[in-house]
Amino acid sequence: VSWKGAPEISAKGWSFKPRGRMQFDAANVSRPAGIADNGLGFSNEIRRAYLGVQGTMSGGFGYRVDIDFAPSSPEFQEAYIDYTRGRTTITVGQHNGFQSLEELTSDLNTSFMERAAFTDAFGFERRLGISAQYRGKTLLLQGGVFTDNIADLSDDANNSYGFDGRIVFAPKMGGTQFHAGASAHYRDTGSMSAGTRYRQRPQVHTTDVRFLATPSLPVTAETNYGLELAAISGPFYAVAETHWMNVSVAGAADPTFFGGYIEGGWLLTGESRGYKDGAFDRIKPANPVTDGGIGAVALSLRYDHLDLNDAGIVGGRQQGYLASLIWKPTDYVLFALNGGRLIYDDAAIAGTGGDRDYGATIVGLRSQIDF
Amino acid sequence: VSWKGAPEISAKGWSFKPRGRMQFDAANVSRPAGIADNGLGFSNEIRRAYLGVQGTMSGGFGYRVDIDFAPSSPEFQEAYIDYTRGRTTITVGQHNGFQSLEELTSDLNTSFMERAAFTDAFGFERRLGISAQYRGKTLLLQGGVFTDNIADLSDDANNSYGFDGRIVFAPKMGGTQFHAGASAHYRDTGSMSAGTRYRQRPQVHTTDVRFLATPSLPVTAETNYGLELAAISGPFYAVAETHWMNVSVAGAADPTFFGGYIEGGWLLTGESRGYKDGAFDRIKPANPVTDGGIGAVALSLRYDHLDLNDAGIVGGRQQGYLASLIWKPTDYVLFALNGGRLIYDDAAIAGTGGDRDYGATIVGLRSQIDF
Amino acid sequence: VSWKGAPEISAKGWSFKPRGRMQFDAANVSRPAGIADNGLGFSNEIRRAYLGVQGTMSGGFGYRVDIDFAPSSPEFQEAYIDYTRGRTTITVGQHNGFQSLEELTSDLNTSFMERAAFTDAFGFERRLGISAQYRGKTLLLQGGVFTDNIADLSDDANNSYGFDGRIVFAPKMGGTQFHAGASAHYRDTGSMSAGTRYRQRPQVHTTDVRFLATPSLPVTAETNYGLELAAISGPFYAVAETHWMNVSVAGAADPTFFGGYIEGGWLLTGESRGYKDGAFDRIKPANPVTDGGIGAVALSLRYDHLDLNDAGIVGGRQQGYLASLIWKPTDYVLFALNGGRLIYDDAAIAGTGGDRDYGATIVGLRSQIDF
Repeated sequence: VSWKGAPEISAKGWSFKPRGRMQFDAANVSRPAGIADNGLGFSNEIRRAYLGVQGTMSGGFGYRVDIDFAPSSPEFQEAYIDYTRGRTTITVGQHNGFQSLEELTSDLNTSFMERAAFTDAFGFERRLGISAQYRGKTLLLQGGVFTDNIADLSDDANNSYGFDGRIVFAPKMGGTQFHAGASAHYRDTGSMSAGTRYRQRPQVHTTDVRFLATPSLPVTAETNYGLELAAISGPFYAVAETHWMNVSVAGAADPTFFGGYIEGGWLLTGESRGYKDGAFDRIKPANPVTDGGIGAVALSLRYDHLDLNDAGIVGGRQQGYLASLIWKPTDYVLFALNGGRLIYDDAAIAGTGGDRDYGATIVGLRSQIDF
Repeated sequence: VSWKGAPEISAKGWSFKPRGRMQFDAANVSRPAGIADNGLGFSNEIRRAYLGVQGTMSGGFGYRVDIDFAPSSPEFQEAYIDYTRGRTTITVGQHNGFQSLEELTSDLNTSFMERAAFTDAFGFERRLGISAQYRGKTLLLQGGVFTDNIADLSDDANNSYGFDGRIVFAPKMGGTQFHAGASAHYRDTGSMSAGTRYRQRPQVHTTDVRFLATPSLPVTAETNYGLELAAISGPFYAVAETHWMNVSVAGAADPTFFGGYIEGGWLLTGESRGYKDGAFDRIKPANPVTDGGIGAVALSLRYDHLDLNDAGIVGGRQQGYLASLIWKPTDYVLFALNGGRLIYDDAAIAGTGGDRDYGATIVGLRSQIDF
Repeated sequence: VSWKGAPEISAKGWSFKPRGRMQFDAANVSRPAGIADNGLGFSNEIRRAYLGVQGTMSGGFGYRVDIDFAPSSPEFQEAYIDYTRGRTTITVGQHNGFQSLEELTSDLNTSFMERAAFTDAFGFERRLGISAQYRGKTLLLQGGVFTDNIADLSDDANNSYGFDGRIVFAPKMGGTQFHAGASAHYRDTGSMSAGTRYRQRPQVHTTDVRFLATPSLPVTAETNYGLELAAISGPFYAVAETHWMNVSVAGAADPTFFGGYIEGGWLLTGESRGYKDGAFDRIKPANPVTDGGIGAVALSLRYDHLDLNDAGIVGGRQQGYLASLIWKPTDYVLFALNGGRLIYDDAAIAGTGGDRDYGATIVGLRSQIDF
C-alpha cells in the first residue's frame, strides 16, 4: 500500500488504485452592454466529479476508467485497456487523440481553470480507438486510429473515423526541460446528418454563454495541425502552442480556423512545474502545510487567441489577457483564482445596437481535491 | 485497515474508505374510497443505492462523495471537501444546510423508513455552498451560505442563494444525553421562473402519490425556523421537533406552513440509540448474530403533523399515527417494518363525491445494508 | 489481501472487493440486398462498463452491486443483499431469475460474444425479488418471486410479478462434469399498458438492427420452460438448451415461441472450461503470458435457433451457424473473434422486392478486461 491521494494496493505485477476528483467553481462574467442573458454575472457549479479506478495486471496489462458525474448524465473520460512492453504501450478503448500539450495535460495540472480556447472550440475529446506510443529517452511517438466518443457511438449509424499522430522531442539540458512537439489529425465525419458548431465559453465553465460561435456547418472532414513549445527552468516555465483546423464543408469553401496561446509562469515558492511523458504534471509543494509550510504558490500569465473567421464563415475572434494564481497546500489539494479580460470581434451575440465588438471581464475561483 | 462495513485503509493523516448503501422497500398504501391511482396498493423499489468514497489527507483536508443510483439518473448526495483544525471544520461543496435533527440524522439511522413529513414537504436538500461548524463539548455551532443543489445549478441562470444557521446544546447529565437545538434559514430563489409545490408522500416512498400538495406557487423567498428537543436514557429515547416555513409569494399573501412530530422509542434488547455531533447515530447491537445473539430490536411510536393550509393556500393537513419495528442483526444490516394510519383534511386528491377528508393505512418493509 | 483481478481485502467473516469490467466491441454485419440501414456494416461500441463492489459481513450477510455505465443512462445489474447459512442462500434485491444455463453464465465467461438468441428475444433480465437456493453436492435448487427490474419499478403503477424455479443435477463422473437442468417461469405483467415486442439483434450488439421482431403485443402473462444439458471432459465440452415461451395475448390466440442451441468446444491449450454452481465459470490459462506462456485458446462452434412464428404472429425465424475463437493471455484479459452466417425466414425488415428470406454474415471482435 502506497498513498497517491488514495491508497494504491500492489503486489508483484498487480496494482489497484481508486481514482477521484472534485472541482467546485464559482465565477463572474461581466455583462457586455445590451446582453441580458441570466447566465452572465455570478454562477457556480461542480465542474468535475470523477470516480474511477486504475490498475495493472501481471503480464503487462493495465486499465483505467474515469466517469464524470458532474454532467446531468455521467460521461466516460478515460476508459481503456493497455498493454506495455518495454518503452511501447498499446491502448484499446476511449482515450485522447494526442491533440495538443494543453489538451493532454490533466485538468488537475493545467495552469488555468480552463484550457486554451482552441481546445474546446475545435472539439477535442476522447474517442474509442486503438493507439500505440513509444516513450524514448527524449523522443515520444504517438499514433492511433479512432472512431468516436462512447456517447456518440450509441447511435449505430455513426460511421466517423480518424487518424491522429504526434511527435515530441523533450531533451533535458543543463537543468532545463525543453519540449517541442507537433501533431497532425484527420477525421472523416462519416454520415454528416447533424451539423457542427465551433464555439467556446469565455474561459470559465460555470456559464453556458458562448460569445464565440460559428453557425452549424455541414462538416464532412476535419484536418488539423498543432505546434507546441515549452521550457521549464527552476521555478520558471514558458509555453506556447498554435493549432490550425481546416474544415471541409459540404457545398461551400473550406475555412481554416486558428487558435493558440503564449504563457509564462513562476512558482513563487520555488518548486518546478512537473513534466512527464510529453505533458505537464503535478506541482508538488516543497513545504506542504502538513509539515507546517505554506504549500506551493504559482502565478501564470497567458495571452490566448482564437479566430473562427475564415472563408466567409463568421464565428468571431477572441483575444484573452489572463492571469492565474494557484495555491496548493498539499500535493492533492488546489485552490485557483483566475482573472482576465476577453476582447471580442464579430461576436456571435449582439450587444447594444447590434454591436459585436466588445469585451468581458472574468473572475473565477476553484476548490479542488483529487486522489 | 479497520472494518466499518467496508475496510478503511489509513496511515498517519491519510485515510480512505469506500462507501455504499442499499435499501430495498416494499409497501402497501390503502386506497381511500374513490381514488383509482395505480400507484396505490402494493409497490416496491430500490429506495437508495449509494456508492461513494470518503477520505482524509494529511494536513487536515478531507472529502466525501456519495452518489445515489436509485433515481433514473444518478444524484449527488454529499459531495464536498473539508478542512478541520481542532474543533472547527470548514466545508466547501454540496452538503446539508443544518435544517433539522431529523434531516441531519442519516437515513441509515432514522427510526422510521421515511423522515418526518415536513422535511420533504419543505424541500430540504443538500446544496452547494461553504459552511463552518464548531464542535464544542456540549455546544455545536453551524452556519453557511449556499446556492442550489448540483443538478439545479446545471442551469447557469440559477441565481438562488441562502443562509443557514443552527445551534445545539447537548449536555450529558447523569447518563442521560440531552439535545436542544434551534435553526434559522433564509433563501432567495433568485429568478423564480418555475413555481414551487410543497407536497409529501404518505410516509412511504415506493408510491409517487401525494395526498398533500399546494398548487405551484411563484415563490420569491423562504424563511424558516426549527426547534429540536431530544433525550436518550438507557434503552429509551424521546424526541420532538417543530418547524415553521414562511413563504414569500409574488403578488399574494405569504403563508406560513407548519410541521412537527413527537416520538418515543425503546430498544427492547437494551442498547442505547446512538448520538453524535448533533444527530442520532447508528444502533450497534450488543449481541449481534455473529456472536450467536439476536441483534438489536427497536420499537418506536410517532405522531407526525403537517399543515400546508395558510393565508388562502390550501395544501391540506396530514396527521400520522406511526409505529416502527427495527431489527439489526449486525451493525450494518437492518430490517424495518413500519405501519401507520394517516388522517387527511383538505387533501389534494378528491375521493368519492369530491371528499377531501379521509384516511389511509400504510405498511412498509425495508431491507438495508451499508458499508 | 488476495488478488482476483482487483484486490480482495478480508478478515474473519468480513470481505470487500471492488468489481469492474470493460468490453470493447467492433463488428461488421453484411447488408442483405435492398436494406439500407446505416446501422449495418461496421459499428463499434463499449459493450459493457461495469463498476461495483461485493462484500461479506460477519454473521453470514453479503452484498453485491454492479452498475453498467455503457448505456446512455447507468443500469443496475446485480444489486442485492444475501444471507448464507450452510448450503442455503437467501437473496433480496435485483438478481437473475434462474432463466437458463446460458443466461446465468456471466458474460465474462460465455463462449460467444453474445448469448443464445432466445435469451434476449424472450426478455430475460434481472428483477427485484426474493429467492432461495440450496447448493447440494450434485443438486442445485433455486426458486424465487420477483416483481420487475429497478428501472421499470420507477413507475409506481407497475404491478407485475412472477415466479421462477430451476433444478440442476450436476454429478462429476470419471473426470467428466455433467449438467442437466430444467427451469419453469410464470409472469403476470400486471397492468399491460405498454405492448411487448419479442426481437433480437444478429448475434452482435454494436448494431441496433433487429431482423427478427414480433409486432408489439398486448401481453398479459408469460409462461416459459427451459431444458439444459452440458458436459465438460478435459479440454472438450458440449452444451445444448431449449426454451419455450408461451405468451398470453389479450384478445388473441396465445403463441408459443421457441429457441435453443447446440454447441461444442475445444480448449486448444488443454485447460478445461470452468464450471461452478450450475453455470459455466472462468477459463484460467495453464500457461499465462505472465509466465512466458501463450495463455488459453478456445474454439467453439454453435448452431443457434430462434422461432418467433406461431399462432398467427409472424416474428420471423433465425438460424445461426456460429464460430468463436477466444484468447485469454491471463485469467482476467480476453480477446474474442466471432464469425457466422445467419439465415432468416419471414424477417421483420424487407429486402429487395419485399424479400423477407435472406442471410447475413457477421464478424465481431472483443477486447475485455475484468476485475
